[in-house]
Amino acid sequence: MEKLDKLYQGKAKKLYATENPDVLWVEYMNQATAGNGAKKEDIEGKGVLNNRITSLMFDLLKARGVESHFIRRISDDEQLVQRMDMFPLEIIMRNVAAGSFAKRYGVQEGTRLKRPVLEFCLKSDELGDPFVNKDSMIALGLVDEDELEQISRQARAVNEALLDIFGKIGVRLVDFKIEEGRNSAGTILLADEITPDTCRLWDERNYQKDAEGSHRIERLDKDIFRRDLGSIIPAYEEIYRRLTDLADSENISLRQ
Amino acid sequence: MEKLDKLYQGKAKKLYATENPDVLWVEYMNQATAGNGAKKEDIEGKGVLNNRITSLMFDLLKARGVESHFIRRISDDEQLVQRMDMFPLEIIMRNVAAGSFAKRYGVQEGTRLKRPVLEFCLKSDELGDPFVNKDSMIALGLVDEDELEQISRQARAVNEALLDIFGKIGVRLVDFKIEEGRNSAGTILLADEITPDTCRLWDERNYQKDAEGSHRIERLDKDIFRRDLGSIIPAYEEIYRRLTDLADSENISLRQ
Repeated sequence: MEKLDKLYQGKAKKLYATENPDVLWVEYMNQATAGNGAKKEDIEGKGVLNNRITSLMFDLLKARGVESHFIRRISDDEQLVQRMDMFPLEIIMRNVAAGSFAKRYGVQEGTRLKRPVLEFCLKSDELGDPFVNKDSMIALGLVDEDELEQISRQARAVNEALLDIFGKIGVRLVDFKIEEGRNSAGTILLADEITPDTCRLWDERNYQKDAEGSHRIERLDKDIFRRDLGSIIPAYEEIYRRLTDLADSENISLRQ
Repeated sequence: MEKLDKLYQGKAKKLYATENPDVLWVEYMNQATAGNGAKKEDIEGKGVLNNRITSLMFDLLKARGVESHFIRRISDDEQLVQRMDMFPLEIIMRNVAAGSFAKRYGVQEGTRLKRPVLEFCLKSDELGDPFVNKDSMIALGLVDEDELEQISRQARAVNEALLDIFGKIGVRLVDFKIEEGRNSAGTILLADEITPDTCRLWDERNYQKDAEGSHRIERLDKDIFRRDLGSIIPAYEEIYRRLTDLADSENISLRQ
């Protein structure tokens, strides 16, 4: 497989064409951003960790029946994926109130939600990724009813599988963002990445009540960067180590 | 019926108790507000017009099978309604892109939507009435699944009926906001008001393309106030006159 023209550079990844029109070459960057790009920094080692973590995640998900665009990891910071026609949506699943959700509705961060909440935002830097509901997505022609039904079903299946995975490694899955698209055969699949950049992950092993009964949260995700709580690298390494142990214990054959 | 203690004063109405615990006395005020109360003004005649318009609307809706909390109009600016346990929701239906919707998604105001869009906002001045989707409403305990199903069905029925009503009087129903609640018998009903304060109404009779092919919109609603386009009174009077003619032509017996 050959790396050809660069097709796209996002905030955390570069996408290149290959000689196969259905396959893209993805390079994970060290860049971290927050607040729609307002905060930006290069963090040595982040690209490698995220490439390794998301590759593992896609294998752990596959073992749970959840397919994705992932083909295989080809180097420390690169992987091959199916070329997708992406829906212009950020697909967000929440199990616990945190971040913008907690702020928007005046709910204490850490409140367990009565049921998982699926949210959609229209991907648009210009418009600030506005919240969008099902009627609006269809009325605006972003998706049709059947696509939305499939996307929603898959997002809930991803959540179930991730709750299982993170539950087994002592991590509380607070929320996460995914993206979906159609491959060249027309199949709707999970795409993009699943990493501590795109999930809120709270350590259950070190999660405990403090003297006042409040929760002390040990964060293992990009909130460390967003909220200036130190280096993300040890947290990302911890997630990678635990996921590796899980994949070993499940005898999962890794696509690499 | 006697007017007893004042129970609540909103932006446009005062609610009073009566000797019947299931009945409230509503007084329509002249106050107009916009931008969550940022712009505020007393407009002579507005209270009377809105009380008359919403009373007519509830009768026109009843004739179309849509029940509401409305009992009867008792004076120029007062009416009796059933006391409701209100859902803390603004229920918005949109047929045409306008206002916050057009801005949020970068859509030209006036774009006809592929299908009616139902939106919900959590009623909270403090939080700025944030947008809320179905999962979130249930997860936050604002409504249960069955309530949400009923509220949504009623909102769509109100839209169908209003499209019929406004269609017959040469007015384009762009969007509107309603509220719903449960009466003492537990029945979920349309409540609050339906007036040019709560609907976007564009005159189809005077609606035409200008020289450049753009639409010149003759507004018959509170956008006249929001956007400083002059006095709202002639527009509200026009709506009232056309609705009166319609009720006459339909031989509707008015509850007054």
